Amino acid sequence: MAVYTTLTNEQIAAHLEESYAVGTLDFAVGIAQGVENTNYLVAVKAPSGLEEKYILTLYEKRVNPADLPFFLNLLQHVASKGVACPKPIVRCDGQLVGELALKQAALVSFLHGKSRSIIRNPHAASVGSVLGQLHCATDGFAATRVNALSLSGWQKIYEKIKGRLDEIQPGLEDLLQGEMIYAAQHFSKIKGLPHGVIHADLFPDNVFFEGDEVSGVIDFYFACNDALAYDVAITLNAWCFEQSGEFSPTKSKLLLAAYQKKRPFTAAEIAAFSVLLRGASLRFLLTRAHDWLHRDPAALVRSHDPLEYAAKLRFHQCVKDVSEYGL
Amino acid sequence: MAVYTTLTNEQIAAHLEESYAVGTLDFAVGIAQGVENTNYLVAVKAPSGLEEKYILTLYEKRVNPADLPFFLNLLQHVASKGVACPKPIVRCDGQLVGELALKQAALVSFLHGKSRSIIRNPHAASVGSVLGQLHCATDGFAATRVNALSLSGWQKIYEKIKGRLDEIQPGLEDLLQGEMIYAAQHFSKIKGLPHGVIHADLFPDNVFFEGDEVSGVIDFYFACNDALAYDVAITLNAWCFEQSGEFSPTKSKLLLAAYQKKRPFTAAEIAAFSVLLRGASLRFLLTRAHDWLHRDPAALVRSHDPLEYAAKLRFHQCVKDVSEYGL
Repeated sequence: MAVYTTLTNEQIAAHLEESYAVGTLDFAVGIAQGVENTNYLVAVKAPSGLEEKYILTLYEKRVNPADLPFFLNLLQHVASKGVACPKPIVRCDGQLVGELALKQAALVSFLHGKSRSIIRNPHAASVGSVLGQLHCATDGFAATRVNALSLSGWQKIYEKIKGRLDEIQPGLEDLLQGEMIYAAQHFSKIKGLPHGVIHADLFPDNVFFEGDEVSGVIDFYFACNDALAYDVAITLNAWCFEQSGEFSPTKSKLLLAAYQKKRPFTAAEIAAFSVLLRGASLRFLLTRAHDWLHRDPAALVRSHDPLEYAAKLRFHQCVKDVSEYGL
Repeated sequence: MAVYTTLTNEQIAAHLEESYAVGTLDFAVGIAQGVENTNYLVAVKAPSGLEEKYILTLYEKRVNPADLPFFLNLLQHVASKGVACPKPIVRCDGQLVGELALKQAALVSFLHGKSRSIIRNPHAASVGSVLGQLHCATDGFAATRVNALSLSGWQKIYEKIKGRLDEIQPGLEDLLQGEMIYAAQHFSKIKGLPHGVIHADLFPDNVFFEGDEVSGVIDFYFACNDALAYDVAITLNAWCFEQSGEFSPTKSKLLLAAYQKKRPFTAAEIAAFSVLLRGASLRFLLTRAHDWLHRDPAALVRSHDPLEYAAKLRFHQCVKDVSEYGL
């Protein structure tokens, strides 16, 4: 939880007045959730007299300013295609990004609804459907961004942490060493699969629901170009394991069926899906293990558990056939 | 900034559903501002279909659970008298306080408007008026709470920090030693003044404005029984010094005049006002010096500057006549 940059109401009010035509600040609340950027919920009295809510984001050091046009243009593009996501508000100068308190700053529409920490079957189905919709909507988006967290990125992270992995859990060194070899041998398969812009971080924190239906998707700051089915694998890992750690074939089947109603898998994607799931597990195991080994005990943000993804990886290693996922 | 207790949306939704008749959770946002308690802004779809906003507060260790009925009944009382403050929502069991995540929890109405960090003259006047209104509204409130931060409380804090004060600023030891003697000799005067329930912490953080008018007062968790004019002194100290540290006779005069339109000072209050201002300065100097000397470098919350109140105390020591405050 964090607000890294504290803004006064005067700063926020002046920023809205100078840069946008949205109305006058009513109230602003620093949002404790979120680990990457500073976010304020701002409510304005719109020229209509009604209250309108927005999220004002200041981009902190983990977002490369050069990537901001990609992220914000992407949001604008997919929102225009009907995806429920934060819609960037165009500034008076025609830009989507400005500056506030020496940080890059953007204003996006507020999404109603709430994330779920307890995932039930209909949630998995609705997420699958929205991911399919998102992949269809990114079709035609011209800008590109390399996925820094693919095979070569994994190798860089692995070099930084190898030799220390058993500090996290005995046996993790062997698990990762073996899986890095497997990935080097097999992950190149994904090059031939359908590619496009992927969300790459569609975890439950980043999906809001109204009732059992997705009402919005947020946090596109890992979005990049990669195999679409790899995004499905990341999402399946995030939504189709119970809190006990057990894989849910029901949720997996529902998620994949709902996704494929929007964009059916090719035969090559089905054939590669097991490799993609192992890769998706390895990617989060690596970053989480790195963050765990380099964690600051005084940090505001608690690091995610690497062992959750070690367990998911071990599960996928044992799966014999993609039919076990419901494909 | 802090959310000390992290709640899931499911916990919040279930708590609202089980304990209140306010409607169904739409969204919840952990609020970064605030240093004492955990606060969530929660929005519900009311039975009417409209969005209604509330603040859900979990009381953390700095609030004594035994004091909660006093605080919440006080809010209920003054809200019923027309003071713009958070109005506690009555639970289905008829109580104002319940339990959530093993903490005492209350739900109060949301106040629109925004606090000011830059204080202009009309703000000082409006705050004076609202403080007068509040003091009139607390008349007839039967419950009482001792002010733990009056003379005997100051002496306890002073015993904990004396001998170390020059670590903060050379000369602070002498200043506080002298002022403790002065307070012991003169502060008992306040016993004969009009007493009642005071806010005791009416700083700019705790006052919201719409335009230049106060739209609401929050954070009654220092409220207690004491001399009403002492509350005016605390408020004057908080609102009538410029950011440069300079005293503003204009703001002081406006604040006192607006206050006295609601509740005129007695002759005894005017005679004691200088002592009250010195006492109000000493009280915040002591607690800030204590917190500064015992601060945790890894703390989430930055401690307030004790020197701000040392300077205010020195200013009041030099004032020859209460006419300098505009009385």
